[in-house]
Amino acid sequence: MYVDTVTITDGQQNNGASKVVNTKQDFMKVYRVLTDELLSDELIAGQPSFSAEYMRKMLDYNVPGGKLNRGLAVGDILGHLQHDEVTEQQMFEANVLGWCIEWLQAFFLVADDIMDNSITRRGQPCWYRVPEVGLVACNDYIILESCIYRILKKHFGQKPYYGLLLDFFHETTHQTAHGQLLDITTAPIGTVDLSKYTEDTYMRIVTFKTAFYSFYLPVVCGLLVGGISSDTAFSTAKEICIQMGQYFQIQDDYLDCYGNPEVIGKVGTDIQDNKCSWLVVQALKRANEAQLNIIKEHYGKDNEASIQKIKDVYVELDLERVFKEYEQASYEKLSAEISAQKELPAEVFTALLKKIYKRQK
Amino acid sequence: MYVDTVTITDGQQNNGASKVVNTKQDFMKVYRVLTDELLSDELIAGQPSFSAEYMRKMLDYNVPGGKLNRGLAVGDILGHLQHDEVTEQQMFEANVLGWCIEWLQAFFLVADDIMDNSITRRGQPCWYRVPEVGLVACNDYIILESCIYRILKKHFGQKPYYGLLLDFFHETTHQTAHGQLLDITTAPIGTVDLSKYTEDTYMRIVTFKTAFYSFYLPVVCGLLVGGISSDTAFSTAKEICIQMGQYFQIQDDYLDCYGNPEVIGKVGTDIQDNKCSWLVVQALKRANEAQLNIIKEHYGKDNEASIQKIKDVYVELDLERVFKEYEQASYEKLSAEISAQKELPAEVFTALLKKIYKRQK
Repeated sequence: MYVDTVTITDGQQNNGASKVVNTKQDFMKVYRVLTDELLSDELIAGQPSFSAEYMRKMLDYNVPGGKLNRGLAVGDILGHLQHDEVTEQQMFEANVLGWCIEWLQAFFLVADDIMDNSITRRGQPCWYRVPEVGLVACNDYIILESCIYRILKKHFGQKPYYGLLLDFFHETTHQTAHGQLLDITTAPIGTVDLSKYTEDTYMRIVTFKTAFYSFYLPVVCGLLVGGISSDTAFSTAKEICIQMGQYFQIQDDYLDCYGNPEVIGKVGTDIQDNKCSWLVVQALKRANEAQLNIIKEHYGKDNEASIQKIKDVYVELDLERVFKEYEQASYEKLSAEISAQKELPAEVFTALLKKIYKRQK
Repeated sequence: MYVDTVTITDGQQNNGASKVVNTKQDFMKVYRVLTDELLSDELIAGQPSFSAEYMRKMLDYNVPGGKLNRGLAVGDILGHLQHDEVTEQQMFEANVLGWCIEWLQAFFLVADDIMDNSITRRGQPCWYRVPEVGLVACNDYIILESCIYRILKKHFGQKPYYGLLLDFFHETTHQTAHGQLLDITTAPIGTVDLSKYTEDTYMRIVTFKTAFYSFYLPVVCGLLVGGISSDTAFSTAKEICIQMGQYFQIQDDYLDCYGNPEVIGKVGTDIQDNKCSWLVVQALKRANEAQLNIIKEHYGKDNEASIQKIKDVYVELDLERVFKEYEQASYEKLSAEISAQKELPAEVFTALLKKIYKRQK
């Protein structure tokens, strides 16, 4: 039925393993299938053309424009799980779930950009900044989210794991929204209370806001398509994925200050934006009284002099070294845990880890 | 377990039927149970107190402050369905689902108020207008919605109809958001295109935006708790509930212009707000050329003279009489359909209809 969406080669590639090739192009074809289905959904049959056109434009603007790493990961994970023995139907299903994760991300990003008063996203104006959109975007992200459940019902409604799948998407949404809430209440706009910037709170924010949906959910989706639904497999995956997500977000915070803007594609603004970043949390842990006073006075102030003073404290505290030590320790701990578990093929996790270890963007 | 949440009397009341009394007070007790559960949810265990406090305040501000008609309806419907033979556990379950509908409504209202730039809701400032909230409300309504699925999983996760229940909540959300989208794209802010104000489009907007969640969903929830899940029962209920929801919204539009502001609690603004109201749709259908020109020139203008000119056209076209004829015809058609169907006790529907027929607010 969907034979043209996946290309499978059995050539020797990538460390000698035969590899299921699931290209970005293949993945995009599945996007077209899904949007066409959503626009001809019987639930909204007879929708006037002007609202259908709006919806297509809204989906195309917000869903497929990212790096698609999370979405593509589901098919990759399935491949590693099954040692590359993947049927075309399975790969199609993995890609459908991959798109559901991209839809989930789009839903959260449209909302985040409104809350953060952001200007651009993925190289174009944020959706709510498009003149004919504005705050209609508040309803658009409700639609983005509800599309997920239309897709899941259509493609997975008859699967034995359908209920489990719904629970995972609900739980991930709840967790991500709570991560967002925690982030906002830790650093409410216009107030600075550095006493809340503890390592504990930081780790909770990144775990809830990023790790669940970016790492655990793609792995869960891959496992379910691969027919695995045991509690022990999920808890092993969760343990590893959460740590990977934390490491990923800590890298993000590090790159915001120390990355090359030309490589990461943006100039970091965490310091002036008063973000509860890993760097400031580490600085607060290590600062002497003088340094603490500088942080209190200058963090969250949008002027070059204040930003430079904060960066100077980071240099004095050698946070680059602190990060590199964390990175190495985290990598070693993750690698050991991946080897120690026997629930799932190590490759499921090592392939994910390889993609993010020492990334520059 | 929840024995104190429901009072059941077997006295002769209300046209001789014995009656399950499910008071607003009983219903509120269930709200407390649910919020306590949500705040001690294992999924967000260990949440710092400042974000838990924010969440409690957000729920209390937005969920229980309305008339609670939709939420209370579920228990009433269950009572009528079972000829008042309702166990306490069943009534508790009906009330939990009633609260899920109230949560769904709260989620949509918080979003609507942001989009419409509204000032007050239920006699207090709209949530996003509370100083420490602002656009954080965009995340809060995501949480409001995700609470629904935590509640459903906890209380209905083991029921045979759990999957069906999730599908109904997802579908209703999708339909309501599409009704909202259709409403917005029919009358985009700042533009007037009366050619879109057709009766067809109007009926679609009210069906999707109001009827599904306000009438069909409460009945579906009552049926499911009552052990009914046949397709024919649902389609009978849908047919009747959708018409009732349309009638309800048409009344709303009528009262916006012709209701007593002291009784309905607000001064109508549909004319100056350029709303696709039933009244303007009827006026456009009936207007001669001169009247059409007046509507084109003055509809959607926020000044007394323009508003009065529109009201004058409504009087010339005798829209009060048109409404009363519609109301009578609608009532008779609904009554006939309710009598004709044998799937469900007539009382399930007549009790709902009695609550809204000729309402003044």
